[in-house]
Amino acid sequence: MQKNYFDHNATTALDKKVLGVMMPYIEMQQGNPTSQHSFGRHARTAIEEAREQVALAIHAHPSEVIFTSGGTEANNMIVHGAAIKERESTLVRSNIEHPCIARPMEAMKHQGWKQALLNVSQDGVVTKEAYKNITAENVSLVSVMLANNETGAIQDMALLHDFAKEKKALSHTDAVQAFGKVDVRFDELHIDAMTLSSHKIYGPQGVGALILNKRSDIEPLIYGGGQEKNLRSGTENIAAIVGFGKACELISESVKTTSTHTHELQKILEVHLKDLGAVIFSEKVARLNNTTFFAFKDIEGSTLLTALDKKGFAIASGSACSSVNKEPSHVLLAMGIDEDLARGALRISFGQRNSVTEVKDFIETLKKELQTLKQLTAIAA
Amino acid sequence: MQKNYFDHNATTALDKKVLGVMMPYIEMQQGNPTSQHSFGRHARTAIEEAREQVALAIHAHPSEVIFTSGGTEANNMIVHGAAIKERESTLVRSNIEHPCIARPMEAMKHQGWKQALLNVSQDGVVTKEAYKNITAENVSLVSVMLANNETGAIQDMALLHDFAKEKKALSHTDAVQAFGKVDVRFDELHIDAMTLSSHKIYGPQGVGALILNKRSDIEPLIYGGGQEKNLRSGTENIAAIVGFGKACELISESVKTTSTHTHELQKILEVHLKDLGAVIFSEKVARLNNTTFFAFKDIEGSTLLTALDKKGFAIASGSACSSVNKEPSHVLLAMGIDEDLARGALRISFGQRNSVTEVKDFIETLKKELQTLKQLTAIAA
Ligand SMILES: Cc1ncc(COP(=O)(O)O)c(C=O)c1O
Ligand SMILES: Cc1ncc(COP(=O)(O)O)c(C=O)c1O
Repeated sequence: MQKNYFDHNATTALDKKVLGVMMPYIEMQQGNPTSQHSFGRHARTAIEEAREQVALAIHAHPSEVIFTSGGTEANNMIVHGAAIKERESTLVRSNIEHPCIARPMEAMKHQGWKQALLNVSQDGVVTKEAYKNITAENVSLVSVMLANNETGAIQDMALLHDFAKEKKALSHTDAVQAFGKVDVRFDELHIDAMTLSSHKIYGPQGVGALILNKRSDIEPLIYGGGQEKNLRSGTENIAAIVGFGKACELISESVKTTSTHTHELQKILEVHLKDLGAVIFSEKVARLNNTTFFAFKDIEGSTLLTALDKKGFAIASGSACSSVNKEPSHVLLAMGIDEDLARGALRISFGQRNSVTEVKDFIETLKKELQTLKQLTAIAA
Repeated sequence: MQKNYFDHNATTALDKKVLGVMMPYIEMQQGNPTSQHSFGRHARTAIEEAREQVALAIHAHPSEVIFTSGGTEANNMIVHGAAIKERESTLVRSNIEHPCIARPMEAMKHQGWKQALLNVSQDGVVTKEAYKNITAENVSLVSVMLANNETGAIQDMALLHDFAKEKKALSHTDAVQAFGKVDVRFDELHIDAMTLSSHKIYGPQGVGALILNKRSDIEPLIYGGGQEKNLRSGTENIAAIVGFGKACELISESVKTTSTHTHELQKILEVHLKDLGAVIFSEKVARLNNTTFFAFKDIEGSTLLTALDKKGFAIASGSACSSVNKEPSHVLLAMGIDEDLARGALRISFGQRNSVTEVKDFIETLKKELQTLKQLTAIAA
């Protein structure tokens, strides 16, 4: 059976060209980049080239790129690293952040820090009012994601910047989902720190970056040999870093084409979904061009997901990262969506290689499955 | 020019068989292991198989294996995770631990925890007396490495176990260097936690593990989606984990042969080094069969390293991880070695693919380089 992969916000397949540049670093004897011999120096050069590729893709300075093991680590790093600088300060975040921002902040709460939440509107965006509602004075960090992984809703970075400036706090955005789908320019956002993840942009797993403004100063999360200018120790994952660099280069060349392409697929999909009676979340606000988060009233999401999976369509229910627990999406609850409808939520996230034919096939299959499920419900009732 | 790689304690080349099992996970569309569709379930199965391979190699239970991004992260995880459980407790370590144990402990000191050091003897081992000198009562963690990365000296794990038991503290050993070179059995060590790193055993970079006894309870270092039973969040690095599993399987099959082989090389090397007047550190105690840490009086280590590198021999000066700073080895200083002699220290660490011919070639080259350096010194004097 042909497998159609519609879950690119969860993870993407490695680009063949990326694999091509990685292979020599996987196959041959590599030196430890901190070693002084020629193997070590060769590895060091490769890492610095990748750093430049990452920087170029997001318009940052190479010295602002800190390689990490992924987006999760980079998010934990900024939360922990900014918090430690100011004991008992307040950490501010939106109430739809990914768990890898939300949970480290909650962990700091247990250690004596404070947390304040920016509540999103019904459309899933942080408005100016939400910022005004934060009364805390001693704010060390404000973190608001650039695009949400479930709804795709894009947040206003100017509001984040203004608030952080007013509070003299460090500003951070989790750009894991936005990067590669919209143009992301670190220099124009005027944000102090930003998180990227490689495996969401057709790069290898196990690598990501925290982009940290030269003027910002944080404590490390992982200490040791002093790699990454003492901010992130540990033997560097050379092949992965080289691959991430290449993936960044390729994605910045292709972001416009890719997003036009996925937008076309998204439009076809959404017209049909609405015909079938679906509710599309965050429909009215600026959203990622590849992401559709939707639900049918009275249809349980995971039942439909399983049925579609059996027919060869891989889609998600809420975020992959929280699908281990069966709670309805925390993002939808934050938006004030009814719990029953939230339980029906499914996410489709298109990628470079999806086609119009795949989407049309999907619609046909979906129609049949909906009918079957409705008949079953009717019999049960 | 042929390149001879004698720096296996810094990093090893990926085993071809390991690469073989990794390739499908690198090349094909993978699911996010927490996703519910078939791609996701396939990824989850691969990870659980690797977990069993790791567990089998060290005689632990699969549920005790927590995958991390490497040895550095695993060490930071146990320090932070054990400390957070008991505010203002004392963290105990030897004074020759790798920086990725030493520095996170020092960071906790700044946060109000205490630290006590076990001083090693002249031979570089922690003796019973050193443990007796620790008077602290409220100890949360004791960490003593199984084998030192520079000298190769092997530590007495029974002493560690007894001390931890008496103090009702968590015991941890950094087995990054010992694993793959000596038989490491978690069940027989009676230690609560142990650190492993994949790239030191011919596995891929960017992965390692904290082995944590089922009865032990620590806080996570990296929070998020709840992967690794909530102890280490972040999208799993599937290919690397699969490769690490295979590397563990292979190394446990080959550890005896490999260690007999490197021991033979080590014996040849050391006879000649001593003939040439070298001091071999930790010579009198149980040491790894592949590691020789030595120095020539009046010869600067990095000068000799550079000369040998130019002739095609990659060796190390002290630990790779601290070679960014030019300080003499902290391990040698802890052993009370004279600072001048310490500055001459060089490390050779053999691996599976080194040969007797390579070692003999090395000796010849070394003789010539020593002569040249001595002549230069004589002229300068
Ligand atoms: C918005 C967002 N932030 C962070 C992450 C975590 O990144 P990684 O998978 O690299 O750990 C994800 C993906 O799971 C995400 O969607
Ligand atoms: C004893 C010891 N512990 C920990 C590490 C760090 O492990 P990794 O390179 O996987 O971060 C190393 C290697 O650099 C080591 O030699």
